[in-house]
Formats: sequence, structure tokens, C-alpha cells
Amino acid sequence: MESLDHFELTKEFLERFGEAIESKNDSFIKESLDRVNPADITSLLHEFSSEKSKYVLDLLKLETAAEIINDLDADVRSKFLQHFTPVEISRFINELDSDDGADIINELPIKIREEVIEGIENEEKAANVLELLRYDEDCAGGLMAKELIKANANWSIGKTIEEIRRQAEDVQKVYAVYVVDDFGRLLGRVSLKKIVMAEDHTKVSSIYDSDVISVETYRGEEEVADIMRKYDLEALPVVNRQGRLVGRITIDDIVDVITELAEQERQLMAGISEDVEEDDSVLMLTRARLPWLVVGMLGGLLGAVFMEAFEHNITLSLTFFIPLIMATGGNVGIQSSSLVVQSLANKSGFSKTTYTRLWKVFWVAILNGFLLAAMVFLGVQFLMGSGLRLALIVAIALLCVVLLSSFMGTATPLILDRFGINPALASGPFITTANDLLGLAVYFGVAHLLFSM
Amino acid sequence: MESLDHFELTKEFLERFGEAIESKNDSFIKESLDRVNPADITSLLHEFSSEKSKYVLDLLKLETAAEIINDLDADVRSKFLQHFTPVEISRFINELDSDDGADIINELPIKIREEVIEGIENEEKAANVLELLRYDEDCAGGLMAKELIKANANWSIGKTIEEIRRQAEDVQKVYAVYVVDDFGRLLGRVSLKKIVMAEDHTKVSSIYDSDVISVETYRGEEEVADIMRKYDLEALPVVNRQGRLVGRITIDDIVDVITELAEQERQLMAGISEDVEEDDSVLMLTRARLPWLVVGMLGGLLGAVFMEAFEHNITLSLTFFIPLIMATGGNVGIQSSSLVVQSLANKSGFSKTTYTRLWKVFWVAILNGFLLAAMVFLGVQFLMGSGLRLALIVAIALLCVVLLSSFMGTATPLILDRFGINPALASGPFITTANDLLGLAVYFGVAHLLFSM
Repeated sequence: MESLDHFELTKEFLERFGEAIESKNDSFIKESLDRVNPADITSLLHEFSSEKSKYVLDLLKLETAAEIINDLDADVRSKFLQHFTPVEISRFINELDSDDGADIINELPIKIREEVIEGIENEEKAANVLELLRYDEDCAGGLMAKELIKANANWSIGKTIEEIRRQAEDVQKVYAVYVVDDFGRLLGRVSLKKIVMAEDHTKVSSIYDSDVISVETYRGEEEVADIMRKYDLEALPVVNRQGRLVGRITIDDIVDVITELAEQERQLMAGISEDVEEDDSVLMLTRARLPWLVVGMLGGLLGAVFMEAFEHNITLSLTFFIPLIMATGGNVGIQSSSLVVQSLANKSGFSKTTYTRLWKVFWVAILNGFLLAAMVFLGVQFLMGSGLRLALIVAIALLCVVLLSSFMGTATPLILDRFGINPALASGPFITTANDLLGLAVYFGVAHLLFSM
Repeated sequence: MESLDHFELTKEFLERFGEAIESKNDSFIKESLDRVNPADITSLLHEFSSEKSKYVLDLLKLETAAEIINDLDADVRSKFLQHFTPVEISRFINELDSDDGADIINELPIKIREEVIEGIENEEKAANVLELLRYDEDCAGGLMAKELIKANANWSIGKTIEEIRRQAEDVQKVYAVYVVDDFGRLLGRVSLKKIVMAEDHTKVSSIYDSDVISVETYRGEEEVADIMRKYDLEALPVVNRQGRLVGRITIDDIVDVITELAEQERQLMAGISEDVEEDDSVLMLTRARLPWLVVGMLGGLLGAVFMEAFEHNITLSLTFFIPLIMATGGNVGIQSSSLVVQSLANKSGFSKTTYTRLWKVFWVAILNGFLLAAMVFLGVQFLMGSGLRLALIVAIALLCVVLLSSFMGTATPLILDRFGINPALASGPFITTANDLLGLAVYFGVAHLLFSM
């Protein structure tokens, strides 16, 4: 079995390959990459600079090179393509599906876009790409490819197979043939399995499945991903407002969308306010990180002002436990909010109301809170020379903070979700800053009460 | 166009449906769910208790009911299935793919598993399920289904089509026919598209594609997901150690794996140490949340001990800024680590070394740090009556904390990754606790230096 997954990036090969580029040993490069999957060549090129990668790419078959360009991450690609002329870029796009071509053009500097589109040799492809550029990238229209196989309901299976033959070169993956009426409106689908099993003279209209799930061009990518995940689809036809079939979305693009959405959520949780990657410039990274840092800092300043105001009620030994109170509040808040975010994303349980939700969170908080408070009480008594009263204050305040942070952590994402804001935002510095301030207030409040008793 | 995505859960329908269950209006229930996609019925049932859901399920066609059971989340399902007898469960499994059947049996109480397997009517299905139960759930063997269509390389296309006809009922989705030799070893694949286009008498051996990517049964689910994502596959054949084709993994299962892995990562980031959901019991939720809370609390106690030790070098007004220093350190640490985690997951850029990585992080930290320090300096001077010296101490300490936390946040996930530990762990309470303590040390260290000057 000649299996492509046996291509391994050994250190020795990397070294030899690097030397081959240096010494312009073109035949070695071509031979060693022959029959290697483009995705593996992409991984290999990640180890080299963009100049060297371009040198290798120029030696490959156009089709392979185009797939490698397509494999690259958007931001890596837009930098890499600066090394190519518009004509070269047109040639790559000519080899790719229309949706991938449109994505690449969307990333190019505006001034060269027209030249690139005009350079696309296949006129139908150029027209398709141009059409796709009209759609917002984050909606079904922006995700779909124009490449699909459709059949009129009145055709026979024999004619449909002829059509598949005719279009097969353009359409890389065929899962089903979409069935349309004379006006191009989507009626249903016939799986390839059914076509294989049918007789040539059978009419498409007699075997197609009308229970086809489709989306309109303007639907958002998250909705598209949810639909494909919910119904376990590998391809989803896209229709315009008149119900005409205009494209199809394949699952591989949706896998990318799901990965991206998870990435966005991680950034929200980490308090990064723009979509950045480690590769971006120092300035972009700073701009993405500063806003939430400023929010946290302002929260900290507010805490300082607050403490100064109560200066005369605060003893130095009381301040020793600020880190403990704040850290616990923050941790409890993030735990609570992330569980709510998860269950909002899943919607896979049976009926559950906000009330039962909060009630359960309350009990978990009571249990965690009492255990932590008991440990802290013993810890303070045992480790430090502080009196019984201080230990009691810290333990009681900690219990209150755990309860309050649980409530905040549960309620905040629910409220954000109600207002159509991504609830994952609540798992970020937002909840930590709010809990920090609340924690301080509770702590000194409890201290004040117990001292005055 | 009769499109299933037009099934909408309106409030009115929900109410009527609820009444129909109460009044045992079976004909209304059956009629309104006729031709509705099982995934939509699952969503509908989420709104009702498990008793009511069982009532509805019993009225549906066995095939539909089985798909709904299959759609449920593992933990919801295991509770729900307690309402069913082993014989009923066997009947559902008889309708499902072998991998889904094995998953369900894996969740059942051990004492009824044997009875359920024995009750599966289709003997081949029972044998397949039994075979799949041998594999670990998190590896390729545990993810694969036995249902696939294979053809001997010596067969003609005509014979292959006959085989597709014979097996078509068992195999829901056919993307390709796998080609094997006389010993059942995987040789390659023929896409359905090629079969549709080929003549009946053509030999499989003359048109199959030998460049097929496969995985061994023991590969981990993360690796399988990476392979399918990298090569844009909708199905992946699985072979045993002898190279024999034993099953195939389809992309819909991998979409679930990707979603689950993202969930796990979120839990790591939130400091939840077990795989729990909001639906789990109070005790399980407490057990999952307590460990990291205790770590954070111990960190807080350590901070208190540390501050007590330096009691004579600390003034009360100095403690006002502890929240600010801690919050900023925590936020910077999480931002840094999550960017590293992201780029470790992607590996989509060109060559990048640890050195260039740290160098860049250093500059971002310098920039963020100086801006924050300047703002804090002005804020402290302006908002509070503190002297110039205090403002200077806080600003300088803040700059140091930003630099240190950036470094820690970048280095920790890289080190964890080197040791084969999920780097997302570094974005959790781990980094916050470490940064809290470091931040305190830096803050009082700077204060000590500046006061003694």
C-alpha cells in the first residue's frame, strides 16, 4: 500500500531539502516531492522562509502549487503572495474552486484585485469568483462554492450521468446531484449512491429526495455550521431569495469555521479584543491586548480608591489576604461562567430553566465555599500568628465571595446571551475585574461588621 | 420546495404539543412529527421532561426513535435510557451504525450490557458492535464504524455496483468504495464519481486510486481529527496492524470530536479538572471545581505568609495597589499563554523559533507595559492623595509585572507542550496563581528598593 500518510518530516530530510534549495538542486526537489500530498508539502514549507518556499513552489506542478497556496492560513498567505505577480496569482486561482479563489482575492491589496480577476483564464471561473466577491465572507454566500452538479427534474439518470462526466473535472467532490426545476429553483437531491443503483432510463423526478435541507445566501456562518453539525451533512446547497440554487457549502470549509469560532472564543476568554495571531506585528498585538488590560487596570485603580476611602477601618494584617480573596473570586467566576457558556453552546439536555440552573449553582457554591472556608480558617490559624478573629473574618468573607462570584459567573453569560452578545465574553477579564471589586467590598464589609461586633 | 429546515419551534406549537402529550393525543403527535427530521425532533424533546420524551419516542417509527437516541449527548442519554428495558435498547441499536451502537452500550450499566448485545436482532450488527467494544473510545478503533463498502481489486465495476446495491441498506453514506486484495488488505479507493463514470466491464484495479490515506486502529482521536482536517477528508479508512481494512471514520463523528476537544480546552482554561456539564450532580460539579480552587487558595495563603514576613517593610497605602498589580499580571499572563496555545494548535506559519517568539513577546510587553505604567502613574497622582514616590513605585512595579507575566505566559505553555501536556492548562488558574505570587514579590521588591534609596 502506498499511503501518503507515510510521508514523514525527518530531521535528515529537512536538512537535505534545505541544502537542495541552497544549491538549486531542482531535480532532487522535484523528485522528493513527486506524489507527496500538497498538504504535506505545505507542512514542509512551514520550516522554510517565504523566499525559499517560493523557489520550491515554482518548481511544482501548477495544480499542486495552487493547492498549497490554498492550504495556507489567510494572514500567512497574504504576506506570501507579495512575492508573486498578479499574473502568477491568476494562474493559481484558475486551478482552485471558486470559493477558495474569492477568499484569496479578498485578501489581496485592492489595487491588484482587478488585474488578478482579469487574468483568470477560465472565463466561467472568473465570472463565478466575481459573483462570490459580492457576498460577505462570514455568510453562507461567502462560504459557498459555485462548483456543483445539478440536474433538471425531467432528465433521465443517463443524461444526468453524462452531465456528471461533463462537469466532473470542475467539481472535485461529488456527494449528490442537486435537482432543479426549469427556473433553476432547488427541488431536492439524488445521492450518488442512488444514481449508481438506478437504471439509465429512470427519470430523476421519480427518485429524487425532496427533503433537502438548504440555506439562504445571507445566513451567518455560525448558523450554517450549526445546521451542518445538527443534521450531519457533508454538503449543503445554498439558494437565493427566489429559491434558485446558487452554490453549495462543503463540510471541510465548515470544519475550518468551527475551528475559527473556537479560536475566537478562546480570545474572548483570554481578553484579546481583536482577531490576532502570534505572527501579527507588535503594534497589532499591542492594540488587541491593551483594551482589556486597561479595563483591568481601571478596576485595580478603583479598588485602590475604595481601600483608601476605608483606610481607617483597615489594618495591615487584613490586607495580607487580599490576594487570596481576589484569586478565589476570580477562579470561581470563570469556572461558573464557562460551564454556562458550554451549556448555552450545546443545548443538548432536557428542559432546564434559569431558576433550576441558579439553584444548582447555589448548592455547588455552598459546598465549595464551606470546604474552602474551613481549609482557610485552619490554614490561617495554623500558618500565621493571627488571632481567631482574623481567621474567622477571612473564612466568612471567602464563603461570601464564592457565593457571589458563582452567581455573577452564572448570571453574566445568561444576560449577555439574552442581549445577543457572545456569552464567552463573560469568561474573560470582564468577570475577573467585576469579581475583584465585589470581592474587596465583601471582604472589607465582613471585616467591618465583625470588628464592630 | 419542501425543506426540512422550515420546521420551526414556535411557542404556540410547543404549547399545543405539550397539551397533546398530557391528553395522550397520539394522532396529533404522530401527524405533526411525520416527515420532520429526527434532529429537529431531538431539539423539540429538549423542551420536555424525560418521561414525556419517552412517551413521544414510543409513538415514532423505530428508525426515527433510534436516530433521536443517537443524537442525544452522552450524559443526557445514559440518564434517559434508564427509562427503557434492555430489549427496547437492543431494538434501537439494531437500527444504528455499529459505532453509534457501541457508544451507547459503553454508556450502559455493566450488568445489562450483555443482555442488550444478545438482544440485537441482526447478527452481523451484534458481532460488529462486540468487536468495536474492544477498542478504547478515544482512538481510531473506537471512532470507526464497521459499515463500509469494499471491493476486491480484481472485480469489475459491474460487480462492484452489485455489491453497492447489496450493502446500500446498511451503509448510510457512501463516499467511495475501498479496494482490498484477497487478504482484505487496503489497496486504495475508487470514488463514487469514478464509478458512475466508468463502464461496467472496467476492472477496479485499472481505475482505483492507490494514494489513499488511512490510519491504524490505535491512533488517538486528536491525531485522526488533525489528519481529516489537514487533508480535507470526508471519510478515513481504518486498518489493523496487518494493514487489513477494518472500518472507516466519517467526518460527522470528527466534527463532534473537534467540538469536544474545544470544550475540554475551555474547561482547562477555566480551571475545571474533570469533564463535567451543567447537568451533572452537585457533588460531581464540586469535585471537578474544587482542586484548582484549592490551588488558588493555597497560593493566596502563601501570599499572606509572604506579606506577613515583610510586614515591617509594607505600609498600608502600598497594599491599596495589590488588586491592580495582581489583576494586570493575571490578565497579561492569560493573554500571552492563549496566543501561544493558539499558534501551537495551528502550526500554519512559516519557520519560527522559540527565540524569535520570546523576542516579539518582549516588545509587545514593553509597549503594553509602558502605556499601562504611564496611565497608572497619572491615575495614582491624579485620583489619590498619594505622593510621587508611591506613584513611581506602582508604575515601575506594574511594568516589571507585565514583562514577567508575558514571559511566564509564553514560556509555560511551550514547556508544557514539550512534556506532552496540553498547553491550554497554562491558560488556566495555574498561570494566574503563579503570576499572583510573582507579582506580589516584584511589587514589594520594587517598593523596598525605592524606599531604601
